Amino acid sequence: MSSENTASSQIQPANQGIANIAPYQTGKPIDELKRELGLDNIVKLASNENPLGCSPLATQAVRDELADVGRYPDGSGFKLKEKIVEVFDVEMSQITLGNGSNDILELVARTFVSSEDTVVYSQHAFAVYALATQAVGATGIEVPAKDFGHDLAAMAQAVRDDTRVVFLANPNNPTGTWFSETDFTAFMNTVPSRVLVVLDEAYVEYFPEYFNSLKFLEKYPNLLISRTFSKAYGLASLRVGFALASSEITDLINRVRQPFNVNSFALAAATAALGDQDFLHQTRTLNHAGMSQLEAGCAALGLSWIPSRANFLSICVSTDVERQGTKVFNDLLKLGVIVRPIAGYGMPDYIRVSIGTFTENKRFLEALSQVLQATE
Amino acid sequence: MSSENTASSQIQPANQGIANIAPYQTGKPIDELKRELGLDNIVKLASNENPLGCSPLATQAVRDELADVGRYPDGSGFKLKEKIVEVFDVEMSQITLGNGSNDILELVARTFVSSEDTVVYSQHAFAVYALATQAVGATGIEVPAKDFGHDLAAMAQAVRDDTRVVFLANPNNPTGTWFSETDFTAFMNTVPSRVLVVLDEAYVEYFPEYFNSLKFLEKYPNLLISRTFSKAYGLASLRVGFALASSEITDLINRVRQPFNVNSFALAAATAALGDQDFLHQTRTLNHAGMSQLEAGCAALGLSWIPSRANFLSICVSTDVERQGTKVFNDLLKLGVIVRPIAGYGMPDYIRVSIGTFTENKRFLEALSQVLQATE
Repeated sequence: MSSENTASSQIQPANQGIANIAPYQTGKPIDELKRELGLDNIVKLASNENPLGCSPLATQAVRDELADVGRYPDGSGFKLKEKIVEVFDVEMSQITLGNGSNDILELVARTFVSSEDTVVYSQHAFAVYALATQAVGATGIEVPAKDFGHDLAAMAQAVRDDTRVVFLANPNNPTGTWFSETDFTAFMNTVPSRVLVVLDEAYVEYFPEYFNSLKFLEKYPNLLISRTFSKAYGLASLRVGFALASSEITDLINRVRQPFNVNSFALAAATAALGDQDFLHQTRTLNHAGMSQLEAGCAALGLSWIPSRANFLSICVSTDVERQGTKVFNDLLKLGVIVRPIAGYGMPDYIRVSIGTFTENKRFLEALSQVLQATE
Repeated sequence: MSSENTASSQIQPANQGIANIAPYQTGKPIDELKRELGLDNIVKLASNENPLGCSPLATQAVRDELADVGRYPDGSGFKLKEKIVEVFDVEMSQITLGNGSNDILELVARTFVSSEDTVVYSQHAFAVYALATQAVGATGIEVPAKDFGHDLAAMAQAVRDDTRVVFLANPNNPTGTWFSETDFTAFMNTVPSRVLVVLDEAYVEYFPEYFNSLKFLEKYPNLLISRTFSKAYGLASLRVGFALASSEITDLINRVRQPFNVNSFALAAATAALGDQDFLHQTRTLNHAGMSQLEAGCAALGLSWIPSRANFLSICVSTDVERQGTKVFNDLLKLGVIVRPIAGYGMPDYIRVSIGTFTENKRFLEALSQVLQATE
């Protein structure tokens, strides 16, 4: 009841926590920089996108879908789920489709977390964990990182009676840090089984030490695994991701899911993309070579970085307050190279650079060298 | 706090209201019916889609967008907003983009409604109003309809101290009913200004008695107008809609909005679609002719219907419990014609049929005649 507001001429305030949300900072679009600087040849290494685009099979699927542009998507996502069942050896009743994995993370919070609850995540972890927590008015518990990565033992300790969800990222964005199967199972064995553990594997296709987390879905009914088509599959423009969990959890989340949350083009492209393992292989090969190129380039410039298992690298560009990540980001922009400042992640000394093609990486390293010399 | 659950080996239950949500019933996809019946020539008049598809300008925009399939969408939707500003004479700060207008309706509930609040909507109104209310654990107040349409005076009376949002649809789905400018302004003058009024105009492009609701945004800062590209613009597959409201309301909703809720293809297609008034004109002309065709056909079959101002017609097919809407729906399916049973909307005697092309409408009327004769 809010009878004290009845006489007011203003609309009632928003729900708890919402007025304090600072919206997610997206990577600067190429078009916007072109507009601002009048530059034509822009390199964008800011959003961990696949420099190869997507599989040609996915492109063709998009073209084919144009015949039915006026029709609503299949709200059940039958064909994509059928393909996920085949590729990942899960049951159809374990799959939730999302408008990107961002949608999955939010659906989890909206289904299981209310304003009296807490949610646990790591320092330097993906920003959407905190945003999804705030949007349902809950309280986030940020656990200090260890060497920029998740301190799983401390995270397990941080779980309270009112904790409903723990978000883990493996590898994590924006640090590229990772954890092992042994540490993961130790964590799962410690956390109370009433707490939902969300394992965000957005970058798992790049992860050389990948362990088959899917096999733990049966052992740990409180586990939900989140995947995306936006990174290695190269479908960021289309918005599609998915969650795998128990049938019970999946059923509840799907009651909250919008009936047509994933568009037809995304459904068709993702289905086709799962059928092209060659493209994934090319993607990994290019990423591996690019990672070596960037590491060698940073070493040559005398810079340190956080070892990464994803498709980006966070580089320490600062030795004093005069030259921090945001300044380097801005200086690089003027040279037509877009990277990501990550001061918002509590890492003011770092920039995060996505791994591009050989030429894009080279252009970045040259621009970085120029910027650093100018500020020495 | 929920310490009583600590010892449980089960995951904690979902948030209030969620376990009771019955997911939205979507129109049966054509592919699914083909699979089930082995039929090839299917007519789908179940989801109020545009039988003309979309503007060729929008189709071309989708093709052009393929060049950047690996890139994230512009999270600000700059170009589409710029076009909306031009076409609808609003400020950019008044626009919220949604993953379909379903997303808009949910964003409103998530921003302004909590589990202690109530939300007012009409009997026989669009199902998502109740679903969005339940998903945030709030209580819906369903106001009895008058002649299947909104009883605006009764709805204003139904507003309580704890009411945060009223959902209005003009025209309404699935009834096709509408209200006038005079009745709308009388309603707005009665409802306390602390209550947000959502005016859902998903079908407004078909509405012959359209009054310019946008001009009331200034007069009533508690008004939000919701529009979609899924109906007259023919972009249902792509998922895009928008809201217009005060800058203050828009700012709050955008804190909850997912940063990339609208995909790149939808952004590009919607921008192009707004530039093709000829296509809208063709759409209206076809719909007008189809409405006359369906009304004449129903009259010839001795059936009554609810006068509609949208792109569908709800027809009374029952005179007794033996022949209700769901039975007629199932019988039509066997003949390859998909319509929508609306028992879930408290209208068990009715079917809702979307207006198709001349040939599709004819096929529907012939199948309906056959079905009715068989059950007489």
